[in-house]
Amino acid sequence: MAISFTVTARDPGTDARTGTVACEHGTLSTPAFMPVGTAATVKGVWPGQLREMGYDCVLSNTYHLYLRPGHERIRNLGGLHRFMGWDRVLLTDSGGYQVFSLSSLRKVEDGAVTFRSHIDGSLHALSPEKAVAVQEALGSDIRMVLDECVEYPAGRREVEEAVRRTTGWARRSREASRREEGGLFGIVQGGMFRDLRVRSVEEVCALDFPGYAIGGVSVGEGKELQREMVALTAPRLPAEKPRYLMGVGTPADILFAVSRGVDLFDCVLPTRNARNGMLFTSAGPLSVKQARYAEDPLPADGNCDCPTCRSFSRAYLRHLYLQKEILSSMLLTVHNLHFYARWMERIRQAIMVGNFGEFVKESLGSGVE
Amino acid sequence: MAISFTVTARDPGTDARTGTVACEHGTLSTPAFMPVGTAATVKGVWPGQLREMGYDCVLSNTYHLYLRPGHERIRNLGGLHRFMGWDRVLLTDSGGYQVFSLSSLRKVEDGAVTFRSHIDGSLHALSPEKAVAVQEALGSDIRMVLDECVEYPAGRREVEEAVRRTTGWARRSREASRREEGGLFGIVQGGMFRDLRVRSVEEVCALDFPGYAIGGVSVGEGKELQREMVALTAPRLPAEKPRYLMGVGTPADILFAVSRGVDLFDCVLPTRNARNGMLFTSAGPLSVKQARYAEDPLPADGNCDCPTCRSFSRAYLRHLYLQKEILSSMLLTVHNLHFYARWMERIRQAIMVGNFGEFVKESLGSGVE
Repeated sequence: MAISFTVTARDPGTDARTGTVACEHGTLSTPAFMPVGTAATVKGVWPGQLREMGYDCVLSNTYHLYLRPGHERIRNLGGLHRFMGWDRVLLTDSGGYQVFSLSSLRKVEDGAVTFRSHIDGSLHALSPEKAVAVQEALGSDIRMVLDECVEYPAGRREVEEAVRRTTGWARRSREASRREEGGLFGIVQGGMFRDLRVRSVEEVCALDFPGYAIGGVSVGEGKELQREMVALTAPRLPAEKPRYLMGVGTPADILFAVSRGVDLFDCVLPTRNARNGMLFTSAGPLSVKQARYAEDPLPADGNCDCPTCRSFSRAYLRHLYLQKEILSSMLLTVHNLHFYARWMERIRQAIMVGNFGEFVKESLGSGVE
Repeated sequence: MAISFTVTARDPGTDARTGTVACEHGTLSTPAFMPVGTAATVKGVWPGQLREMGYDCVLSNTYHLYLRPGHERIRNLGGLHRFMGWDRVLLTDSGGYQVFSLSSLRKVEDGAVTFRSHIDGSLHALSPEKAVAVQEALGSDIRMVLDECVEYPAGRREVEEAVRRTTGWARRSREASRREEGGLFGIVQGGMFRDLRVRSVEEVCALDFPGYAIGGVSVGEGKELQREMVALTAPRLPAEKPRYLMGVGTPADILFAVSRGVDLFDCVLPTRNARNGMLFTSAGPLSVKQARYAEDPLPADGNCDCPTCRSFSRAYLRHLYLQKEILSSMLLTVHNLHFYARWMERIRQAIMVGNFGEFVKESLGSGVE
């Protein structure tokens, strides 16, 4: 089954919309947030807990799985779904972003990127065709084309070259695609240059993918520029296809992008911050390591009904964090992912009842970051 | 409510028995195994998962909680049950074992042991009265008297002195006990000297505690000596009181001790081994790190219905372990604790149907270690 996208409601005052993305392994209600499961596990949670929180889709990183344990090994074991015990939708990235951010000695040519593994220094080449083949071996529902993500800041010539290469790679990725199920998404680049963003949108969308991602943001450009690029790019992507903003962001970032018509999100913030002792709460960020919580009997967030807030005090969370207990990462991750799941639920609800503009105003007024 | 113990079945061929220990926070079916939750958490599992596995009692370590976050702090937060989100039975040790094994610069006198914290080197004194007071602040159901646990090997004079001191401390602990609920257990020492074991049993049991523990084993003496001491000591403890073998052991160790009339067990083996990649299975120990499991699609134990074996392959467990993923400790700990819970269930079942002798023979024949 190929991916199908249906818009179910539109906000009258903004570009926000609700919809459903139907894939082989389930249907996502959008706007949706996808937890990051880098090495075939969302760190610190059982797959069943993700389902209980209402998650229908997890992202996993092709770069990491390609290196360890290897995509052929995962294919032999029945694919990534079976391997990680997750029977709902899986999205994999192309591996390109990690090649550019984690590996060393990379050499970018039109044919492929050659790089050294950040684990053992071994030499590898990633071409658009290879990125598709690896993801098809993994068997993910949503797969991403290989793109060239430039750092920030970058000069115009460099970004222009990346846009050209990204379009060529998108075409080759599409031609290399063999798997009917699910679909391969195109990715738009263009750095922080408005005309190059527009050019990338036109070139990539001409190739007719079942969904499009906004790449090349959240690379250090700051909130203002990021939002400018999202506001510029998202509405130009085809309205009848799902739009995915890669690697973004905070609850407020998501709110902004939804208002510009974005449907899908992923970000390491809720899970990584949890492991660093930082909780998202309805009253703003809370750092459990602070001494003021040493004897605090209250739950992390009084408005939260997650399993962590139902049973444990701030004092206990602080104790576990200071003792470096495994349970600390477990409890805090469940809370943060629960918070994000409820946040997306409230966004969808507000759009469906035609109340999104009010919801944005109230949220920003109450200090959501 | 004070502790009450009822024997519900006796094996005709051995000293094995089933029973119930009724405490303020619930009732244990014995023989029972208690997972170790050192710092107010059984590492890697949610309290709810322990309940789902059938555990009714968790052990926590007084030494660790006294140092961090402090017993007064836990008392102020409503006690250890509320602090760690565990509403069933809690057993705390006296702190003595860790003072002798973890701390430095200890000085043992009749009045108290003085020692330096293994965390920050701060100086502390632990007396029998203090050990009782700390445990009463924690609010545990079953509390242990302070005893002197000697290393192995130890000379006769040293052990004789420890027996004398242990008896004196037991008497003082009993006198210091203020809390009606639950109960304070006595502990028998005596090293590897048969006559000193017998003397310690006589002296400590004369003080009439609601339960008795066999201490001073699992200190490096080896299986043969350990079993000799258990076989000597357990049957001499009052039959109408629960008998607790501290810090033991493997499934086979437990089987042996049950056959000599022991009712309660705790041990770090299932949880610590899990974190080191070692699983208990019906076919013997399994080390997930081995290369032979790299593409093995089978569950860790084909005869196991735990959440780990129901969903995940050996290949996935190996991958998580090698990647040092948090989920590795989580999945392996759940499996091992599930294995121990089922093991105790089978032991109780065999005793109740009068089939324990056969069960022991079959188990040892099938390679249980």
